[in-house]
Amino acid sequence: DPKLKIFALNSNKPLAEKIAAEVGVELGKSSVRRFSDGEIQINIEESIRGDDIYLIQSTSAPVNDNLMELLIMIDALKRASAHTINVVIPYYGYARQDRKARSREPITAKLVANMLERAGADRALVLDLHAAQIQGFFDIPVDHLMGAPLLADYFLSNNYVGDDTVVVSPDHGGVTRARKLAEFLKSPIAIIDKRRPRPNVAEVMNIVGSVAGKHAIIIDDMIDTAGTITLAAAALKNAGAKSVMVAATHAVFSGPAVERLTNSVIEQVVVTDSIQQPEKNKMDKLVTVSVGPLIGRAIKHIHENRPVSPLFENRFR
Amino acid sequence: DPKLKIFALNSNKPLAEKIAAEVGVELGKSSVRRFSDGEIQINIEESIRGDDIYLIQSTSAPVNDNLMELLIMIDALKRASAHTINVVIPYYGYARQDRKARSREPITAKLVANMLERAGADRALVLDLHAAQIQGFFDIPVDHLMGAPLLADYFLSNNYVGDDTVVVSPDHGGVTRARKLAEFLKSPIAIIDKRRPRPNVAEVMNIVGSVAGKHAIIIDDMIDTAGTITLAAAALKNAGAKSVMVAATHAVFSGPAVERLTNSVIEQVVVTDSIQQPEKNKMDKLVTVSVGPLIGRAIKHIHENRPVSPLFENRFR
Ligand SMILES: Nc1ncnc2c1ncn2[C@@H]1O[C@H](COP(=O)(O)O)[C@@H](O)[C@H]1O
Ligand SMILES: Nc1ncnc2c1ncn2[C@@H]1O[C@H](COP(=O)(O)O)[C@@H](O)[C@H]1O
Repeated sequence: DPKLKIFALNSNKPLAEKIAAEVGVELGKSSVRRFSDGEIQINIEESIRGDDIYLIQSTSAPVNDNLMELLIMIDALKRASAHTINVVIPYYGYARQDRKARSREPITAKLVANMLERAGADRALVLDLHAAQIQGFFDIPVDHLMGAPLLADYFLSNNYVGDDTVVVSPDHGGVTRARKLAEFLKSPIAIIDKRRPRPNVAEVMNIVGSVAGKHAIIIDDMIDTAGTITLAAAALKNAGAKSVMVAATHAVFSGPAVERLTNSVIEQVVVTDSIQQPEKNKMDKLVTVSVGPLIGRAIKHIHENRPVSPLFENRFR
Repeated sequence: DPKLKIFALNSNKPLAEKIAAEVGVELGKSSVRRFSDGEIQINIEESIRGDDIYLIQSTSAPVNDNLMELLIMIDALKRASAHTINVVIPYYGYARQDRKARSREPITAKLVANMLERAGADRALVLDLHAAQIQGFFDIPVDHLMGAPLLADYFLSNNYVGDDTVVVSPDHGGVTRARKLAEFLKSPIAIIDKRRPRPNVAEVMNIVGSVAGKHAIIIDDMIDTAGTITLAAAALKNAGAKSVMVAATHAVFSGPAVERLTNSVIEQVVVTDSIQQPEKNKMDKLVTVSVGPLIGRAIKHIHENRPVSPLFENRFR
């Protein structure tokens, strides 16, 4: 039988270590360095001939460097006669460029899928894609994991449940995600309805649903600059919410995100470790739950040809 | 007939302007920006439906960013119904990773060719590839331009010709390139023969051929950290060369290159503008000849279905 091996690139080594620990293997030996001119130099330092490789890399910032590391490593694994190459991408960069929002735009999320396949990936394992449709950009099998059960576990174990709590979608596109979390918590939902009364006038945030006196949890797939989410938090507080928390799978945290979150009314920011955070992003209100055990278990299921979906039905802890 | 349009990305706008001027067109309108998280955002700002597009981008440092810009722009052009997409890559990054020098290494120069084709390139126009074999990494037509005639023009017009001058190859791999320049100048050649007498002992530079009393021109395809070339220059000076100059198509200039060249015995560094130089790389001894007219004429030949090779036979000025 082909041997299961896990390799990690540079974007998120701590998460890769957690995944390997769950699977019960050591990370494979490889070196990923830079030449003097910035070109990536990769060498795989053990034989992988005939092995099933799980290659861990989030294509978070610096996105182009992390993506090229991934593509070059796939090329090296293919040429070193791996049996299968399974790419594990906890955070899938360029996911928001998933359609032509205007004329003559690229669809970079599809380009990335094409590149991964052309380089030699046989399968992809991803977590909370910005749009579930991105699975269809691939012709290889894609397993799509959900962070919601893990985020739910955090709120459940801190007793944010039932009618005392409300799960808030920051826009109409996110209602399905909010409903999922609300089901876990047996709580009601509310929706932020952004309207621009006239052109060039600031947006107004209306809240559909009742939040007064409740603990509000805003849920989104990612927090990028945190602009919308901090405005939504202020609107919830104004509408009488007892406290405001936010939950998101991917902590992109670009530009003013950390400053905005720190200075906001938000009491807790609950995210996963799909993206490794630099030291400067650590905040007292930041709670990080690890997707390492979830991804590790998914890898074992895939390698043993067992379905991945029961991981969610049984509620993952 | 499809219309010829030239678009430039961010790596080398001044060269793209020169190319467009030679062709006699304005650069196409497009915007290439960054989102807050560093992801590339591209929009083509004029219709290109049914047009023949020539897209100019050197994949010099930052190589991964410049390569992704190129791939994303190809995707956008394809989706905007370009008739043909011709990529013009004056400096082809990752060219030195053109073979497995050790086990379990990638062949990134081939990966890049695959990515360009998969994204939608119909043809490539390149300049002095590190190895001519890289043409064979593509399944689409590749036109391969040479910088040597342009570099030769510079030395000819400064009267470095005949037996008074010697063209030096810095290693055995570069002899063909040196012979080419020597033919133009009607000068003899010499070869630097690097030998390591014992392991962990510094290399010794032996000179094969006579250089005493002559103007020596070291020629290479690129100057990266300038380590070898400055050592070779010192060896040539020691062997009695009257002066030492270097000529190279691609001024990579990474790490200590500029410092080394500045402090070396080298009197002139003659390069092309295939790679745009930051202000800090300007040196008094640096001479830059433009490949803009050469590339511009090649584009006109390609667009009119005329052969590209006569550009070299007629000596390009
Ligand atoms: N990295 C990014 N940062 C901010 N906006 C982006 C990014 N990538 C794509 N977009 C834009 O976000 C929009 C899609 O976001 P959404 O409506 O949330 O799916 C599109 O208009 C994209 O042009
Ligand atoms: N960007 C780079 N900088 C320095 N060396 C490189 C680079 N890319 C590849 N190489 C190495 O250079 C060698 C090939 O150079 P050459 O022998 O001149 O063709 C191989 O051993 C490569 O691993």
